[in-house]
Amino acid sequence: MPESTRVVPLGGLGEVGKNMTVVECDEGIVVIDAGLSFPRDEHLGVDLVLPDFEYLRERRGEIRAVVLTHGHEDHVGALPYLLREVDVPEVWATKLTLGLVKSKLDEHGLMRSAELLEIEPEKGAIQIGPYQAEFIRMAHSIPDSVAVALDTPGGLLVVTGDYKIDHTPVDGFRTDLGRLAQLGNRGVDLLLGDSTNAERPGVTESERTVGEVFRHLIPQCEGRVLIASFASNIHRVQQAIDVAAETGRRVSLIGRSLRKNVNIARNLGYLEARDDLLVRPDELDLLRPEETMILCTGSQGEPMSALTRMAYNDHPHVAIEEGDTVIISAKPVPGNELRVHDTINRLAKSGAEVLHQEIAPVHVSGHGNAEEIRTILALLRPHNVMPVHGEFRMLAAQARLARDAGVPADRIVLAENGSVVELRGGIARLTDQLEMGSTFVDGLGVGDVQDVALRDRRHLSEDGVLIVVATVGMQDGREIAAPEVISRGFAETDSLLEEARLEAERTVEECLRQNVRELKLLQEHIHDNVGKLVAERTGRRPMILPVVVEV
Amino acid sequence: MPESTRVVPLGGLGEVGKNMTVVECDEGIVVIDAGLSFPRDEHLGVDLVLPDFEYLRERRGEIRAVVLTHGHEDHVGALPYLLREVDVPEVWATKLTLGLVKSKLDEHGLMRSAELLEIEPEKGAIQIGPYQAEFIRMAHSIPDSVAVALDTPGGLLVVTGDYKIDHTPVDGFRTDLGRLAQLGNRGVDLLLGDSTNAERPGVTESERTVGEVFRHLIPQCEGRVLIASFASNIHRVQQAIDVAAETGRRVSLIGRSLRKNVNIARNLGYLEARDDLLVRPDELDLLRPEETMILCTGSQGEPMSALTRMAYNDHPHVAIEEGDTVIISAKPVPGNELRVHDTINRLAKSGAEVLHQEIAPVHVSGHGNAEEIRTILALLRPHNVMPVHGEFRMLAAQARLARDAGVPADRIVLAENGSVVELRGGIARLTDQLEMGSTFVDGLGVGDVQDVALRDRRHLSEDGVLIVVATVGMQDGREIAAPEVISRGFAETDSLLEEARLEAERTVEECLRQNVRELKLLQEHIHDNVGKLVAERTGRRPMILPVVVEV
Repeated sequence: MPESTRVVPLGGLGEVGKNMTVVECDEGIVVIDAGLSFPRDEHLGVDLVLPDFEYLRERRGEIRAVVLTHGHEDHVGALPYLLREVDVPEVWATKLTLGLVKSKLDEHGLMRSAELLEIEPEKGAIQIGPYQAEFIRMAHSIPDSVAVALDTPGGLLVVTGDYKIDHTPVDGFRTDLGRLAQLGNRGVDLLLGDSTNAERPGVTESERTVGEVFRHLIPQCEGRVLIASFASNIHRVQQAIDVAAETGRRVSLIGRSLRKNVNIARNLGYLEARDDLLVRPDELDLLRPEETMILCTGSQGEPMSALTRMAYNDHPHVAIEEGDTVIISAKPVPGNELRVHDTINRLAKSGAEVLHQEIAPVHVSGHGNAEEIRTILALLRPHNVMPVHGEFRMLAAQARLARDAGVPADRIVLAENGSVVELRGGIARLTDQLEMGSTFVDGLGVGDVQDVALRDRRHLSEDGVLIVVATVGMQDGREIAAPEVISRGFAETDSLLEEARLEAERTVEECLRQNVRELKLLQEHIHDNVGKLVAERTGRRPMILPVVVEV
Repeated sequence: MPESTRVVPLGGLGEVGKNMTVVECDEGIVVIDAGLSFPRDEHLGVDLVLPDFEYLRERRGEIRAVVLTHGHEDHVGALPYLLREVDVPEVWATKLTLGLVKSKLDEHGLMRSAELLEIEPEKGAIQIGPYQAEFIRMAHSIPDSVAVALDTPGGLLVVTGDYKIDHTPVDGFRTDLGRLAQLGNRGVDLLLGDSTNAERPGVTESERTVGEVFRHLIPQCEGRVLIASFASNIHRVQQAIDVAAETGRRVSLIGRSLRKNVNIARNLGYLEARDDLLVRPDELDLLRPEETMILCTGSQGEPMSALTRMAYNDHPHVAIEEGDTVIISAKPVPGNELRVHDTINRLAKSGAEVLHQEIAPVHVSGHGNAEEIRTILALLRPHNVMPVHGEFRMLAAQARLARDAGVPADRIVLAENGSVVELRGGIARLTDQLEMGSTFVDGLGVGDVQDVALRDRRHLSEDGVLIVVATVGMQDGREIAAPEVISRGFAETDSLLEEARLEAERTVEECLRQNVRELKLLQEHIHDNVGKLVAERTGRRPMILPVVVEV
């Protein structure tokens, strides 16, 4: 029987976020990416969402390395949490990705927890754990992104990472179609390909087109120009800075993550900006509006970000005024639309003209559309395809593209988080499905908030809470004090609360008369009777919390 | 001094939804539209949002009529609530709008509360309250939409209602550019124009293009075709039914609001569908998949709608299967994106191919883009412009278009809900700004849920609630029973709860030792001390509710 490789996605399938895939053979495990995701509406009060590390905890001695394809949070953000839980001897990434990761590990006090090793795509294959590994440059919305090819016992596996086929990337590093073609000629057994834009027809525009739009728009602006984009989109920042230099504007960087990323990128040679072009935020007032450009965070309407604070007139250095032009050079992540719209409305109200992706071509995606995925499929000619990185609709769309490209239907694996996909003798098969959850980070707690707490938060958020406190004598089983009723978030009237109190009193008296003294039963009766009364009177179902105190 | 007209928007400015505008002169009030809006994320637990009727309650004897421009919820949905609060002698609307409103009033048991009168745009001017009124047909995403021209003491006022300039509308009723030009030649003093798409360049495509897409796509579908759209988009339904007839498919209508609207539209002659083309949902199983088309509700991912239930495999008559094609012929209202994506993912998982507006041209807007607004401005040549119907960014965009069209800057009024705009001698001025809130409908309650309840719900939803019950003897001021601590939605551990309990006990003992017996003070100390402990241990801030029972 030929040897096999097991591929187990821990995150990133059926969702956009927390990408993480285990590539396992008898000689050990290499993990591709360790990303996090941001909470959805239903994750009330949750700060971050991590992949479920249980599979790795159970195999803690077998992890040889983590390989990071690029520096976005949904690919590297969970690394500090992973390193706290299991031993990872080596973390491999390209130079910029390592720079971003080092800063992150530093903040978490984890600098010594793994050896950080640099991927140099041009230097050819290296050994990582049990596998020969090669790296292929891919264009994306952050520099220094790579695809990973792993020579494994079960066959040759290619993980694209996030990519688009940008023939005119800002940094000159094109998606390396030649290397991909070479791999295709060698024979790719299994492709794990980015599915984000697989549903979208045609091709994504080059990042350079946004620079051209800046070059066209900004000379027409008579006042200040503010550009908000993702802090990690170094190419976008470079293009904005270039246009500032060309149009006689000096640039101020506002927002912690932007300043951090720009610093790292400049130090490592990924971003060029003359020192005399940059000004501190508190120096902006010394310049005329038409001499300034402000690059800032807040393109997603994040509550404490620079642009949001400016929009709500709460920023120490920048007050938006008539004549300002604000360019929101990003697309709202689904779920953030209303916050972004709120920000735009507030900026418009302060007199700014706001250009955003719904009305002007000021943003392009970092992910390839259907025709680009078709090109990759044509170059790699994979024997098996497992779409990754995306919601189910996106995975299904890539599956259709693979079918169109001639991959037989039974060689296309539509997996989920926790699927065990076995590659053996050049054939990939779904062999098992493990329970795979998510881990919530809430305040200082990692993993302690579970679904039941979220369900309670949801219930509380709908109609509030109504607390009934009854006091019962332990010996004689009579009521000691009249019940108290308090409520929060439930728009009560005094008369309704009094009715609820009387209903609770009546219930307790009746229970005691019938010798029902068991606390749980008493509470249940109070819960049911008061809840019914409130629902009848108001049509609402607040959480009813009966507390019976024995004295 | 010339006579004046006061225009007071009660809703629809700075928001999309609850459109309602008061047009008032000394002889009385005519209200244009009475719409509702749907709650946003922060309106936790709220079912509907209504305009603030206070201005009308204070002038309850002066209301002569309500005029409805078309039958969408954001223009007619608040009417039943308005009719319950104030006397409205007359409600004017076109035939289809009246049909939809009658059904709504019937459900609310309000059929006799106002005289319902039909607008016939072709019959020329009529008297409504103190004003001569004319109506102009406008194309929109619901049939029978009109603009309103009111001859008022302060000048000629035109309210566009919602519109696009569709030169090939499905029902043949074009936006009546000729009548608009006539009004322009007479001299329009104040234009209240739809701003929804004022930010978007170019023109909106004709509704007919969606029919052409249906005509192209549906013959290629080998299985069932399901189309979800807004229930009120009768033209969309008509086009789908026409293509079904052409391609040998029979049509089943699923979803209460869709069936209701289609019934009304058919009875009034706004929709043509042969009886033998329609099948009941329970007859679908008798037909082959390629002989069927299902039109359904749920294009916004609404929790209990037909499409959502099908997506979650919870519909009594339709189970999604491999080979089905689902067309979501609508755009998510901002805020609904994630729900719509969830629906798409579930449908894809069941094997359906899903076409939606992000990836295929299966939807067009009912609102005109910038070039259409420019055309209206050019035809009407208004002396004053007050952008309405939209978030601030949209109003500001229409203001820019008006400026470009030659309206002087001081004749463009950027008003808000509650602004009092006075039109006198052909000049419009903002003369006052009234406090203008919203009214929440939650369960059976209208207006009782206030901001404080929403703030509490928000707090509860973030970190849950922790309740501390302490029992104190009334006479001797000693603690009678050990405090109890219960929590919901706060991911507590037993040890943390025990710590909180001990902290509460310690606090009560210390207070009593220092002779602090006042209940409020005791509660405050418990609240602060337990809250501090919990925040230190967990980084979370649940709502702390101390209850001190005196026995």
